[in-house]
This record gives sequence, structure tokens and C-alpha cells, in this order.
Amino acid sequence: MTYTSQSDATWLAPDELDAARQRLPILYIDAIPVRVDAQGAVTSVGLLLRVTGQGSITRALVSGRVLYHERIRMSLIRHLEKDLGPLALPRIPPSPTPFTIAEYFPTPGVTAFHDPRQHAVALAYVVPVEGDCEPQQDALEINWFTPDECRTETLLAEMAGGQGVLLQQGLAHLGC
Amino acid sequence: MTYTSQSDATWLAPDELDAARQRLPILYIDAIPVRVDAQGAVTSVGLLLRVTGQGSITRALVSGRVLYHERIRMSLIRHLEKDLGPLALPRIPPSPTPFTIAEYFPTPGVTAFHDPRQHAVALAYVVPVEGDCEPQQDALEINWFTPDECRTETLLAEMAGGQGVLLQQGLAHLGC
Amino acid sequence: MTYTSQSDATWLAPDELDAARQRLPILYIDAIPVRVDAQGAVTSVGLLLRVTGQGSITRALVSGRVLYHERIRMSLIRHLEKDLGPLALPRIPPSPTPFTIAEYFPTPGVTAFHDPRQHAVALAYVVPVEGDCEPQQDALEINWFTPDECRTETLLAEMAGGQGVLLQQGLAHLGC
Amino acid sequence: MTYTSQSDATWLAPDELDAARQRLPILYIDAIPVRVDAQGAVTSVGLLLRVTGQGSITRALVSGRVLYHERIRMSLIRHLEKDLGPLALPRIPPSPTPFTIAEYFPTPGVTAFHDPRQHAVALAYVVPVEGDCEPQQDALEINWFTPDECRTETLLAEMAGGQGVLLQQGLAHLGC
Repeated sequence: MTYTSQSDATWLAPDELDAARQRLPILYIDAIPVRVDAQGAVTSVGLLLRVTGQGSITRALVSGRVLYHERIRMSLIRHLEKDLGPLALPRIPPSPTPFTIAEYFPTPGVTAFHDPRQHAVALAYVVPVEGDCEPQQDALEINWFTPDECRTETLLAEMAGGQGVLLQQGLAHLGC
Repeated sequence: MTYTSQSDATWLAPDELDAARQRLPILYIDAIPVRVDAQGAVTSVGLLLRVTGQGSITRALVSGRVLYHERIRMSLIRHLEKDLGPLALPRIPPSPTPFTIAEYFPTPGVTAFHDPRQHAVALAYVVPVEGDCEPQQDALEINWFTPDECRTETLLAEMAGGQGVLLQQGLAHLGC
Repeated sequence: MTYTSQSDATWLAPDELDAARQRLPILYIDAIPVRVDAQGAVTSVGLLLRVTGQGSITRALVSGRVLYHERIRMSLIRHLEKDLGPLALPRIPPSPTPFTIAEYFPTPGVTAFHDPRQHAVALAYVVPVEGDCEPQQDALEINWFTPDECRTETLLAEMAGGQGVLLQQGLAHLGC
Repeated sequence: MTYTSQSDATWLAPDELDAARQRLPILYIDAIPVRVDAQGAVTSVGLLLRVTGQGSITRALVSGRVLYHERIRMSLIRHLEKDLGPLALPRIPPSPTPFTIAEYFPTPGVTAFHDPRQHAVALAYVVPVEGDCEPQQDALEINWFTPDECRTETLLAEMAGGQGVLLQQGLAHLGC
């Protein structure tokens, strides 16, 4: 089995997934792609730029569902390659422990995280990427921001669903 | 809403849950109940004693499914009270970060964790309990073991599905 | 040996400590005292209010040096009781792993943390306190702030040496 | 300033260091060098082989003192290059949080860690190395062991001062 050639449909038809989303918390991974210097310190954070159906700009972390019978580390690689391209060279952390858990609720305000489609629980990781990143699918660009730039109101206002909060939590974990 | 009076059936009928279990990773919490001394150091670990249908003894951690629209901390309390009784007084950790993630696969050998019913991903926590613990439901006893006793082959042989490995990981996290 | 009756002078004369401070990184603990609700979620953070020699107000975390032959958990209790009083009832976390490391340099700007007296490396912990807290020694008051209040510019401006940054890192670790 | 050309003597004369070691906890880093596969999972652990003055074999982690005005990440790189050679290419973790704290006491039995020379507190990290490792100075060899081999009694008996315990804690943190 190669993880790159599998589509979600192998595991769950779209209407079945819709039904499950009304009944079960869905397991996700959220990844903060970073560039690090020779001492391992983070120099920049990569965010995906997308344009919504309403024409507004959003910036997003790498995020996606964990599939049936898929290991967390394989899921991280699959979603990082799906969003950053096959040459991104993500360095998945050796420990499986996420730096935090983001609980996305369909009801706004229960936590800082909101997903109107579902109750999703995301395991959040910081992942250094060493290769070339190219926007894939629906992303227009991948932009790199310094940790300081990641704290500006303008940038945080462009992130949806609480991902700006998660980004701040990730930067705090990194000692930034 | 009170979390104690709700049954799983509110969210998912048994046959629907069975179907989902063949298609999606199911989110669980695993909790290691501990007694701590005045300095916060762990003095003993609580394990549930059950007798299987085949008449053999198993010892288990507190473990259970996270329900739709249920927060992780509420799920921890619900399962701890379900297994240790309403007077256990669990002290849920202030941080949501688990000490590790246990990936239970239906196929043995993929990871150290195995669950023949499903692919479950458990967020694992150590939870000090300060009150009185009484076995509930299908548990015969709750027994308390020192960290050293938790490393004996005899005890580890009585734990199933890789929970002995998870217990060792928890003790290592505690500096034992 | 009781940790409460010992003074630092037992281990190191003031001039010897001054000499060591010019030559060695000094080990510290930093503690963020918190109140938690029945689910373990943080409801408020305790900060010490002091007036400096120049008459300005500063707010501080609990912080202090680890002594020779003192365990980290004993040092945490000693400093928490020294600053919050003997009835504070701190719940030292069962795991020895700090949520972060704060590297205070005598040279400003090397890190976010600065201590003009020394190079100190602090192991940082969040510690729930369940008892009555009373200001001790040079503290005028202990004030409790909600996580949201802890993010206001006014409050952060009253914290010195980078402790405002450490407080934010602690809140991020708590999922606030 | 380059960290590789500096000797400890720049900061502290040997007799001064001896005096400080009787009075203060000394800050250390302990590093577990690992090889990882393309998914970030640990495949092997590197241990230094030394022969003691008594002719017995010991295996050791990378370990060393943090110098005055030295950042933790620089100290990690300095000690890893000192023990594994300049081509080891260590990947220092982006987060400053150690996976645990090892408290080495001069008195045996206070903790699992013992150092007859001093009270040392080590921040412990797992560090993937990607380059060529060559034994330096007093090490005869660097040997690589699978996680399973790291749990054998024979190997653990060759580690001194509690480093075998620390190695187990590191493997547990890695989910091994």
C-alpha cells in the first residue's frame, strides 16, 4: 500500500462521511510547516493562501482527516505533500505526541476552534520542511512569515476557524 | 446537559457505530489513574480488574470513546467516573496535551496497540484521583500498584491490547 | 531535612553566589499559579504585585533558584509557599517535564528573557493552587486574572524580564 | 564567537568549577542521538562506547555542561559535535521543551540518576542525526542499536549513572 495513491473514497463514500460527521468526532491532523536554521530555531512559518467562494482571502495551516487504518505519521506526510507538493521534504517529528489538541466544534464558542461541518479533533504538530514547496490544488500560494509577522492582527484576521489561535499556540510551544 | 446521564445511543445506534468502526478511526481517551504524594510524585497506579468470558483475568486502564460534541476533558471525567465511581475526584490536567497517542489497529503488529473491533486513536493522560474509588459495572476490583510493581512481567502479562506498553510510557513520562 | 526552614545561605555565601553568577548558568524554577474548575480548565492566573525601588508597579510569576541537593518538586513547593503562603496548597504536576524552558540572559535581546544579574535557566511549570493565598515578604498583593485579562497590553506592560512572554507561553500550553 | 573553539576554561577555572559543584546544581544537557526513517520513526539509537580506568566497558548518551551565556540549542550542537564529530549533522528540535528532566544527585538513591561529582540537572532531548558519526576523544566507538536492542538487560547494564533509565524514558517518549 502506498499512501499517496489512495483517495478518501476508498474508505468512505461521501454520503456515509456526511452521516458520520453528524454522529462522531472526526480525527484530524493539523500541521504548522516551518523553516528552521542550523540550530533548529524556527525562522519562518508557511501558510496556504486560498480565495473563498465569496472572494475573500484566507490563510490556512495544513490540515486533513486521518483515514481508516492510516498511521498518524503517514497522515501527516500525506497531507503535507498534498498541500505543499511532493518535493517539500517534511521532517515528521520522532515523537507521536502532538504539541496540543484542537477541538473544532460545529457550535461556535464552545472552544476557540470552529468547523461548521463537523466535530473534529485535530492532533497538532510543528513540522520542519526542507525542500521546495509549491501550492497544490485549491491553494494560490504558499507564503512564509517570520514568527513576529505571524502575530500581526492583519494576518490573524485572515485565518479561519481558530487556526490563528492554533498558530499562536504552536509559536509559544517553539519558544517564539 | 449533564454528561453522566447520557448514553452513547443518543449519538449513534449500535449498528451505525459498527459501520463507522469499519470505516473511520474512532477517537478514544485512555487514562492512567494515579495517587500522588504531597510533592506531586506518583505513589501508585490504579488498574481495573476484570474477568473475561474465557475466565482469564485482565487488568485495564480507564478507556473509552469520545462522543459527538463532547469535550476531551468531559470525556475524561465521564469515563473516570464510569469506571472508578462518582466519588473518585479525578484531577483532570489543566493542559489538553496528552502525554502520548496510542494508535490501536485492528490488524495486530502495525503498532504496539491492538483492538480487534476497530481502528481507535486514544489520547492518553495521567490523572491523579483524590477520592474513593469503587469498581463499577464489569470490573471486579480496582487495585493499586507501585510504579515498581507496574513493571513486573506478571502484571504486564495481564494487560491486553498493548495497554501494558502504554502504562510503561506513562510511567516514563512521570519520571518513574 | 525540612525545606521550609532552610535558607539559601546554608549552601552558598552571598559573595560566592555573586561569583558563581558571573561564571555559570544558574538553575531556576518559574511557576504560574492557577485556579482550575471541576474539569481542570484554568479559570484564573495568580500574579504577585510588587512596588519597585523606583515606585513603579510590577507583576511577577513565582520564581526562584534551585538549591544544591534540592529536588525540582521540592523547589517548586518551597518557592510557591514562600510567595503564596503556607496555606496555598499547590498541586505539583506529577510529571517532571516543564512546559518550556526560559533562558534569561544578562545581555538583553539574546532571548525574550532578561535578567541583569545573571544567566539563569528556568524550568517553567503551571501549578494549580487550591488553598488560600496571602502575599508574603515583599509582595503587596496577589491578584487573580482570567486568561483573557492576562493578554491585555496593560497587564503585560507590568511584567518584567520577559515574564509576560512566559505567561503567554503558559496560557498557550493550557489551550487558552 | 564560534561555539566550537571555546573551552570551558574561558568561563571557569577547574578549581572554581570544583567549588561551584559543591554548592550549586549544575545545568547539563543530555542528548539521545537517533536515526529516523522517512516517516520520522526512530530506527536506531547511537551510544558512545568507552573503557573506564578499571577496564570495564560503558555505553553513554551525549552529555555535557551548559556554559555561561550559552544557549541550550548551541550547547546541544557543541556537545553532539564534540562526541559524534563535525559531520554528524544533528537536527536540533525546534521546540526548547525537553522530553524530561534528569536530576543527578551526588547521593545515590535520591532519584534514579547519580553523579558522584555533583548535583547536575540535565535537560534531555532526542536529536535525529543525519550525517556521519565518528567517535571523538575518549570514545572508542559509536554503536547503533534498534529500540528493541536498547531494552536488553546486557545493554542497560553497560550504562552508568541512570542513563539506562533515561534512555528508556526517551524511547517511551518516542512511542517505541
